[in-house]
Order: sequence, then structure tokens, then C-alpha cells
Amino acid sequence: MEPKRISILGVGLLGGSIGLALKSRANDYNITGYGHRRSTLQAALNMGALDEGYDQLAPAVRGADVVILCTPVGLFRPLLAELAPLLPPGAIVTDVGSTKRSIVAAAAELLTHPYRFVGSHPMAGSEKRGVEFARADLYDGALCILTPTPDTDAIALAEVEGFWKLLGMRTCRISPEEHDRRLADVSHLPHALAAALIAIQDDASAALSGKGFLDMTRIAAGDGGLWRDILSDNRDNVRASIERLKTQLDRLLGLLHDDKSDELRAWLDDIAARRASMNLQIQREKGIEG
Amino acid sequence: MEPKRISILGVGLLGGSIGLALKSRANDYNITGYGHRRSTLQAALNMGALDEGYDQLAPAVRGADVVILCTPVGLFRPLLAELAPLLPPGAIVTDVGSTKRSIVAAAAELLTHPYRFVGSHPMAGSEKRGVEFARADLYDGALCILTPTPDTDAIALAEVEGFWKLLGMRTCRISPEEHDRRLADVSHLPHALAAALIAIQDDASAALSGKGFLDMTRIAAGDGGLWRDILSDNRDNVRASIERLKTQLDRLLGLLHDDKSDELRAWLDDIAARRASMNLQIQREKGIEG
Repeated sequence: MEPKRISILGVGLLGGSIGLALKSRANDYNITGYGHRRSTLQAALNMGALDEGYDQLAPAVRGADVVILCTPVGLFRPLLAELAPLLPPGAIVTDVGSTKRSIVAAAAELLTHPYRFVGSHPMAGSEKRGVEFARADLYDGALCILTPTPDTDAIALAEVEGFWKLLGMRTCRISPEEHDRRLADVSHLPHALAAALIAIQDDASAALSGKGFLDMTRIAAGDGGLWRDILSDNRDNVRASIERLKTQLDRLLGLLHDDKSDELRAWLDDIAARRASMNLQIQREKGIEG
Repeated sequence: MEPKRISILGVGLLGGSIGLALKSRANDYNITGYGHRRSTLQAALNMGALDEGYDQLAPAVRGADVVILCTPVGLFRPLLAELAPLLPPGAIVTDVGSTKRSIVAAAAELLTHPYRFVGSHPMAGSEKRGVEFARADLYDGALCILTPTPDTDAIALAEVEGFWKLLGMRTCRISPEEHDRRLADVSHLPHALAAALIAIQDDASAALSGKGFLDMTRIAAGDGGLWRDILSDNRDNVRASIERLKTQLDRLLGLLHDDKSDELRAWLDDIAARRASMNLQIQREKGIEG
């Protein structure tokens, strides 16, 4: 039996880690990579993340069974347009993007029918960028969100879900709309807050910061271009999340009075209890935090 | 030579860790502890954090050379009032509070002249609470902020500074006013933001959160009573910090438009660069982050 051909478009932290994870867990895959920089492709080949690397799209997707878009979100649409006429019949296409409505809509528009696209968002990553930070265990134990629509091919969906499980991930399925709304709250808004928190500091204050500040602002060191794409692409939801957060800050401002001390305590206690229960859930599922 | 007598008022995570750190680094100290709960005192004695434990203040501070207030910030004022008539002549008093203006003012008002109070804020801790989480290395490598005023006894200041250095801390000196203003930005506001971020989530969104969210909201699991005291005590500065943060969020809302894409990118890039340079500084000084 021929090995399955997996084509990774964009060989950075996420794409490189897919290659390493696949190589460490299965040996019946042939992994090709596509990227603009020869040096990146060579690094990925040297690490064993790829079997073949190409700086042209056509040879990278020739005979592919599964194609995975791993470029920044902002490049998905032009990449899909270039990919459409080159795609082998029956090939499945998925992605690793942090937003889902736009890529799902672009695939429906640009890929030839019957197309077999399934939106994926593996919740793994780092504020680091580049194939040199790729790790075989990056996806292990983390959650991959799949975003099928009523038009999604059921067999393709099952295959993509099986692929992420092979890499050690847990999976769930929600609509692209629900994904983008909820991720605005738990991922895109936190990034915006971390950035805003850095923006108000001067160096003398930063020098007095402790571990809490370090933890809270770590994600603000993430790549500006990647995050510009994500925040822009999900802008309606991000705006709504920011407004809801501002409402909570206004509520807190209202509680910062002598005669509201008990209410402030109740607000903080309730939040601490909710955070502790969330914490336990993540702890159980992912094995992080002691 | 008699061993120095250190009296720890409030034997929780911070007080217990002072005892353990002192025992692991020096053997010429006699450490007494004061607390309301016999079970806590017994636990601290069993761990070796204390030599003697009392549920009355008078025997706990008898003959003390250094008295350290380690209760929640909200109890400092009544504790100082009770301590004042019991304090041995020449004893130095310091504290571990997260706010400094109120305790420094209360000491000036309540302690008998010539009093020898020096405000301290060791920047160490955890969202965990209680002596059972105390560790001998809690203070090691972290920063202790000392907040002398023009009235502070110079010898007492040098002794308190030496005490924290003995526990492995780095130290710096700023005024109580500057402390409270800067800590609102790097500590109290981050806590408020983490809390507000939890407050807007529902369970289904929380279930989709990743490591960034976990890091960013960890401090929101901290004790509600402790944080009520801190936010209330530093309320004027916290209000100002929240308003400045809201201004940045409004700026971001203004950048979430198609024609502002380049400006959004520049804002994020600038912040990522600033965070990366802060990160390097903390990394160098504290040996955390790889």
C-alpha cells in the first residue's frame, strides 16, 4: 500500500510540529512541505519534519491525500485560490487557522465542487514563531476544534478528526460562527488585553513587575502580523468582547467605594471560585498545573 | 551572643515562608509566630517554620528585635494599634503588604516615637494561600520593594534591607506613593483584568480555552478577601489604572477597521517588542522563562 501523502503549506512552528508529530507516531506517511524560504525548508528537512520540501505549490500538492494550510490566517485566501486548480481529485483540505468563518467561506467559494474542506483549529502554539521551535509533542493532549457546516463532507470530517487524534489531540465540533464568537472571548480578547496592559506601562513600573504580570502578558510578545490578521478577521466578535470586558471594568469601578466593600468581595469570591473550577477541568484534561 | 528574635505576625504562605527561608539560611535566629488558629501554628511548628507559636500578641512579640506584619493588608491597622504598647524599645517593625501608603501612615500615627517602622513589599507569593504552601525558596531571587520616607530611621532601613537580602531577595527603594501608583499598573490592574476576563466567560467558552487563557487568568483564583483589601486600599490608583487601560482598549477599537490595518500592525509590533525587552530583563534577573 502506498504511503499517504500529506502536504503542509507553510512550514513554521505549527506546520513543522505537524511533520514531527506525524513522524514520531506513524511511518506510513509521506510529508511534503511548501514554503517561500529555502532555508526554512532545509531546516525542516534536517529536523526530519518533512520528506520533501518545495518553494512552488504545484509539486508540493501533487498526489496529496491531505493538504493542510499552515500559513498565517491573512494568506489563506490567496493560497486557496492558487491551490484550487492544482488540487488532486478527492484530496481533503484543512487548516490550522485561529479564525474559522472566513476560511470556511473562502473554501466554499474557491475550491472546485465537490470540494472536501474541513476547518480545523488546533489549540496549540506559542508566542514563539518559526520551524526552529517546532516540537513533536506540541499538539499532544491539546484540543482541536473542528468547524463543519451542513455542506461539509462527512467522510472528510471523520478523516480530519482522525488525523488530529493521531497527533494526540482531543477534538470537538462547533460551527464556524460559534467558534469565532467563543474564541474572541477566550483567545483574541486576552491577547488584546495583554497588549493593552503592556501599552500603559513605563520602564520603571515594568521593573517592579512580578510573576503574575509575566504570565499575564506573555502572549503580548506574539507576532504582530499574525495577530493583526486574527483580530482584523474576527473584528466584529472582538469588538463585542472588548465592550463586554469594559462593562465589567465599569462594574468594578462602581465597586471601588467604601460602602461597596461587601459587594466587591462577593464579586471577587465568585470569580475566584469560577476560575478554580475551570482550572480543575483544564488540569484534568491536559495534565497542566499542579 | 543571644540569637536575634524575629516575630512573625500572621503565619500563612508569606509568614511561613519567611520562617522556612530564615531557618534554611541562618541559625542564629529565634522565630516566634502569632496567629489566631492553633492548628495553623502547630502546622508551622511541625514544618520547622517557627520555634515558638502563640495565639496572643504579647508573648509573640516579647523581646523581639524585628516584628514582621504578615496578615492580610486589611488587618494591619488594628494589629499595629494592638502592637504599639507591647513593642520592646528599639524593635524594628516591617511588613509584607501589597499596598504601602496606608501602613506607612498608620505606623507613623500609631507607633510610639521614636518608632522604627520600614515598609516592605516582597514581590513573591502565589494564588495559593495558607502555611501548607510555604516554601523556603519563595523569596529567592525575587524583588523586595522598600518604601522609606524622610522620617524613616536610616539604621532600621539598612537592617530591614539586609534581612530581605539574607532571604535571597533583590531590593530597591521608592516612596510609598510611587510604590502604590506603579503597583496599581503592574499588579492590581492585572488582577482586576484577570477577574473581569473570567467574569465575561460562560462554561462553553471556558472549555475552549488554551494555555494563554490559563496563564492570563491564574491570578484571578487568588483569595477574594485579600484582593478586596488591596484594591480598596489602593482604590484611587487602581481607578486611574483602569481608566488608562480603557483608553488603550478604545484605541484598539479604533484600529479594528479595514483602513487601519497598518496602524494596528504597528501598535501590536511595538508592544511585542516592548514585552520582549521586558521579558529579557526579568529573565536575566530572576532566571525564569527559557
